[in-house]
Amino acid sequence: MTTNIPGYTYGSAEVAKSPLSMDDFANIKHAALFGDEDVRYLKMSRDILKDQVEQILDVWYGFVGSTPFLLHYFTNKSDNQPNTDYLGAVRKRFGQWILDTANANYDQDWLNYQYEIGLRHHSIKKNKTDNVDAVPIINLRYILALQVPITTTLRPFLEKDGHSSEDVDKMQDAWRKSVLMQVILWSQPYIHEGQF
Amino acid sequence: MTTNIPGYTYGSAEVAKSPLSMDDFANIKHAALFGDEDVRYLKMSRDILKDQVEQILDVWYGFVGSTPFLLHYFTNKSDNQPNTDYLGAVRKRFGQWILDTANANYDQDWLNYQYEIGLRHHSIKKNKTDNVDAVPIINLRYILALQVPITTTLRPFLEKDGHSSEDVDKMQDAWRKSVLMQVILWSQPYIHEGQF
Repeated sequence: MTTNIPGYTYGSAEVAKSPLSMDDFANIKHAALFGDEDVRYLKMSRDILKDQVEQILDVWYGFVGSTPFLLHYFTNKSDNQPNTDYLGAVRKRFGQWILDTANANYDQDWLNYQYEIGLRHHSIKKNKTDNVDAVPIINLRYILALQVPITTTLRPFLEKDGHSSEDVDKMQDAWRKSVLMQVILWSQPYIHEGQF
Repeated sequence: MTTNIPGYTYGSAEVAKSPLSMDDFANIKHAALFGDEDVRYLKMSRDILKDQVEQILDVWYGFVGSTPFLLHYFTNKSDNQPNTDYLGAVRKRFGQWILDTANANYDQDWLNYQYEIGLRHHSIKKNKTDNVDAVPIINLRYILALQVPITTTLRPFLEKDGHSSEDVDKMQDAWRKSVLMQVILWSQPYIHEGQF
């Protein structure tokens, strides 16, 4: 990975090893019916989405920005106002996340970075990457719920390249499964020992 | 509710009040883009699914039964063999859950019962309803992952009544959102205090 995105440490030695093994992750894939076809459709989506990243982020940020109980997680603890530096820093990594999700490269580096992303939503690491003083944790229920707007609003972008509606359906299904698997992995720090 | 399903306590005084308020649940609905249209399409699905419950359960039980790391949760602690009484007792409530999900009646009784279902997957109450000696908890990662087979395999059943593919899409979307909201609520006992 060669990007200049601050705090984007995917594949670097700074990222700790995931507490979940690749075998355990294989079981999650199996339970979520995630297979080689999904990998193929995610990669197909990459070519379509790569030039639309900013527009997609506009839609997602528009939703969070207009929803006070979600924008809350980007506000300063001190004055309860949205921290625009924080929102901007996260946005750069969020854009890269779209490409990484579409890359669909489920190796050990990927698994490790999912755990890192979970920690950064959780009080263990939230705010540290961007050195901000925002609220200390993103409640897990919203991380899980946001799968829907993330994958629903993607559809018009997936449709832009003139693929058949069957291909668009399959790309969207693959995105739904990949995002679900990721939020499952992100949830680990929130869960009591041995219950994940 | 008038059923004779053992352990089905929806709406009864035995069910504790959900620790989540109706206002908090309204935020989850908002974050998951769940609205009145979804309620309408869930109710539409009820008429289609109500006579296919056993066939749907056959598909779901077929998947779990053929997946050792999932069937594991229905095995006896003592001999590691599947407990058929337990599987059968859960199946009756699972059938009723299909109808309850399609009823889409999101009131306080419904919210309370979601918490009860979560407790029954968690070590706090697992095995107690059916008085069995199975493994003590269902790991949350699989509860979350199983949303995919549950909502994917539903499609051919939703298609049986000759509705337009647009209606089927919308019924399936509404099911995805409802099941997601339910597994979010079920996850609460697994999560560290204040992080849900």
